[in-house]
Amino acid sequence: MSDTVAAADRVDVDFGDDGLVPAVAQDADSKEILMLAYVTPDALDKTLETGRAHYYSRSREELWEKGASSGHTQTIREVRVDCDADTLLYLVEQDGGACHTGHESCFYRRIDGENVGTKVFDPDTVYE
Amino acid sequence: MSDTVAAADRVDVDFGDDGLVPAVAQDADSKEILMLAYVTPDALDKTLETGRAHYYSRSREELWEKGASSGHTQTIREVRVDCDADTLLYLVEQDGGACHTGHESCFYRRIDGENVGTKVFDPDTVYE
Repeated sequence: MSDTVAAADRVDVDFGDDGLVPAVAQDADSKEILMLAYVTPDALDKTLETGRAHYYSRSREELWEKGASSGHTQTIREVRVDCDADTLLYLVEQDGGACHTGHESCFYRRIDGENVGTKVFDPDTVYE
Repeated sequence: MSDTVAAADRVDVDFGDDGLVPAVAQDADSKEILMLAYVTPDALDKTLETGRAHYYSRSREELWEKGASSGHTQTIREVRVDCDADTLLYLVEQDGGACHTGHESCFYRRIDGENVGTKVFDPDTVYE
């Protein structure tokens, strides 16, 4: 995404009572779903200003930039909003893998436990 | 998905304090992200038992089968769970469109409001 999107030009996102919306990150090229995390108004601002995916950690209670410590950043190609404006879609270029386990995607397991994912880095070496 | 997955053979999903997890529905062929909705243990049971996507409506406070009234059903090809086991991915064969607006996907708008989606049915005719 070459241009930032000023707040005034954005769809009015419904952040609800808890001030969060889920954001799905999808690889813009392979179309693999990489992860789901939560976004505050500040996280969305940072994402659109910097062109790098930012989320809000509910456990650490802080804004975080994906890959800030691991290097596995997500460069934003496009941000979409759903019909109810209460869920975001980040179309990204993923550097390395999205999952802290070393897999390309956090969705590497079927519900029956079978591992169907691709491992792309060693989580002992790089962790986020 | 030809086989049902018995509860005992499933990854232990973390439904959290509110008893819900988000579920992302992705078209198993085109890989388009179709929608995000919420799932209770009952909705997951029904999904795995019937091979049709079921969700829980937070506004109506009831279990619903996608497409039960509109005919725009989602046949489950695979269910995945993420690394933290608190988000589901439904890989589906979508009949018609996923969005009540008539679009193939609920994510038909960019954050700047530009419509980038494909309309596949007339929402005045069929609505869910």
